[in-house]
Amino acid sequence: MKASFNSTATMPTIIDILAARKAVYAHLNPTPLFTYAGINKLVGTSTWLKHENHQPVGAFKVRGGLYLASQLSDTEKTAGLYSASTGNHGQSIAYAASKNHIAATIVVPEVANPGKVAAMRGLGATVEHHGKDFDEAREWAQHLADQAGGKFIGPTDEQLICGVGTYGLEIMQTLPDVDCIIVPVGAGSGVCGTAIVAKTLNPNIQIIAVQSAQAPSMQLSWAAKKPVPAATTTLAEGLATRIPFENTQKIMRKYVDDFILVDDEDINHAIYLLLQHTHNLVEEAGAASLAAAIKIRQQLQGKKVALVISGGNLDSKNLFNILNSYEKKNETD
Amino acid sequence: MKASFNSTATMPTIIDILAARKAVYAHLNPTPLFTYAGINKLVGTSTWLKHENHQPVGAFKVRGGLYLASQLSDTEKTAGLYSASTGNHGQSIAYAASKNHIAATIVVPEVANPGKVAAMRGLGATVEHHGKDFDEAREWAQHLADQAGGKFIGPTDEQLICGVGTYGLEIMQTLPDVDCIIVPVGAGSGVCGTAIVAKTLNPNIQIIAVQSAQAPSMQLSWAAKKPVPAATTTLAEGLATRIPFENTQKIMRKYVDDFILVDDEDINHAIYLLLQHTHNLVEEAGAASLAAAIKIRQQLQGKKVALVISGGNLDSKNLFNILNSYEKKNETD
Repeated sequence: MKASFNSTATMPTIIDILAARKAVYAHLNPTPLFTYAGINKLVGTSTWLKHENHQPVGAFKVRGGLYLASQLSDTEKTAGLYSASTGNHGQSIAYAASKNHIAATIVVPEVANPGKVAAMRGLGATVEHHGKDFDEAREWAQHLADQAGGKFIGPTDEQLICGVGTYGLEIMQTLPDVDCIIVPVGAGSGVCGTAIVAKTLNPNIQIIAVQSAQAPSMQLSWAAKKPVPAATTTLAEGLATRIPFENTQKIMRKYVDDFILVDDEDINHAIYLLLQHTHNLVEEAGAASLAAAIKIRQQLQGKKVALVISGGNLDSKNLFNILNSYEKKNETD
Repeated sequence: MKASFNSTATMPTIIDILAARKAVYAHLNPTPLFTYAGINKLVGTSTWLKHENHQPVGAFKVRGGLYLASQLSDTEKTAGLYSASTGNHGQSIAYAASKNHIAATIVVPEVANPGKVAAMRGLGATVEHHGKDFDEAREWAQHLADQAGGKFIGPTDEQLICGVGTYGLEIMQTLPDVDCIIVPVGAGSGVCGTAIVAKTLNPNIQIIAVQSAQAPSMQLSWAAKKPVPAATTTLAEGLATRIPFENTQKIMRKYVDDFILVDDEDINHAIYLLLQHTHNLVEEAGAASLAAAIKIRQQLQGKKVALVISGGNLDSKNLFNILNSYEKKNETD
């Protein structure tokens, strides 16, 4: 059974995504979709950046958390939310839980980043350290949820897809004549929400997914039409999926036109270019869409392109290393 | 006459600022006002960041440019806008002109930053290099405007104050029970717009202005109640005013409760803290409000504080130097 995708779950529709709007906009405003002369020049065509890095916890996932939290039964609300995370997902769940007055428990691996743990605690979540990696943390979160009768949240729960799909609606409202949308893929909720919206409104809109070549499992699975786990060595925490997710793969097979890989080095360069041309701090996953656009520049000419900047939570050490590399390169140019 | 402030110009009111909303929101959305656990802990009280760094040209000034451009006569529109700038102001005027289909000419000093010149040109402005510093560039811009019968825009024109005051309205709408607002001061349009709004709605709201100790002319003038020019050595381009502006000083004398100076070193540290705790890239002027809040931490306890993050256009070289200093310091802690 594990060798093929065989979910019989229904696929969310644009109606489900429209239904998420009320819960999302109770706590968030739409994010900007901006165009920059410097980026247009780099990509060689009209290019628009969807600034999910402007969210209060710095990433698009907060939309999904808010919708999911709003849909809990009273029993689930009392028992609380349980999830595992090493970063953005945990902060989003913590934020959504706090806005809905629900307790949240986030399990992180024993070696988790102290800054991110502090951020989750600052948002009111209980953080437990357990296990040597994300998968062990996830099992423990599931165990805690079962014990407490609470809701365990995986990274691709349908309500998360519907919540994050609201940024797809925003892109279509601001730029209805968009030709192509490029979306970074970790577990796939973002690209699925976006694709459902865009393809329903206009099947001619091209949806291009992007993952790091140093974390290719979702891309390999999409291309092979079956689950292909793959080791990850990427620095792009938001793209580092080892084991593909069945429900998002199913949606991607229906809607995604192309799925490309970009090297971590090109992602780092895109982070530097975004700093230079937009003065936005963008994390590795968020910059993958620009790296992809530069890579497939030729095929984008004449099109109106939207790049999803999925998040901004770049570690300052990584930022320092990027600047150390590219500022020095600039000096010697 | 030059030794005292003696303008007889009327002062703008909240009604003038409300009137600017239509032109501003024709092209911009309100910016977020977010709170962050890490920043609350640093300041020791409930602290809210007004994210003007999320504007399309990375700074609050664009609001003023849009309102001013919308109020031009047909003759002025045809003759175009003329201004001098080394940075954010020029980009804002270029952006506003382009949105209103008006030609803009920005004069920059001969040694202007090529990245900023490219950004202004990317927004459609004509950029002329003239003079060895801002003042010489400004005289040339005035000369060009006179020749063409176009509109010369100074940094504190009343319509700019009214346009930028719309972020003050947004703060009051989102956080009506704010106790204290801290605003960075360059020429003073931001603090004037904010103070007019806040003090009109609630005279008990404390307005604190902040400038760099390495550029103290506006602070010295406010304290002495007369113009006190002062040399600037600050890296904070947005705070580097040598010669005080009379119309903004007059408004500040009426409304500003306190005006403090922070060292450039504390501003750089605040930039690093904002990166760490909010993952926002903030320029020197924009980080001065946090540096000030940390400096006067004791007197803010128990208050609800709003910090104006006036812009995000930090030069990547300065960012690199800040990280080079603070990342290394962290490692040795």
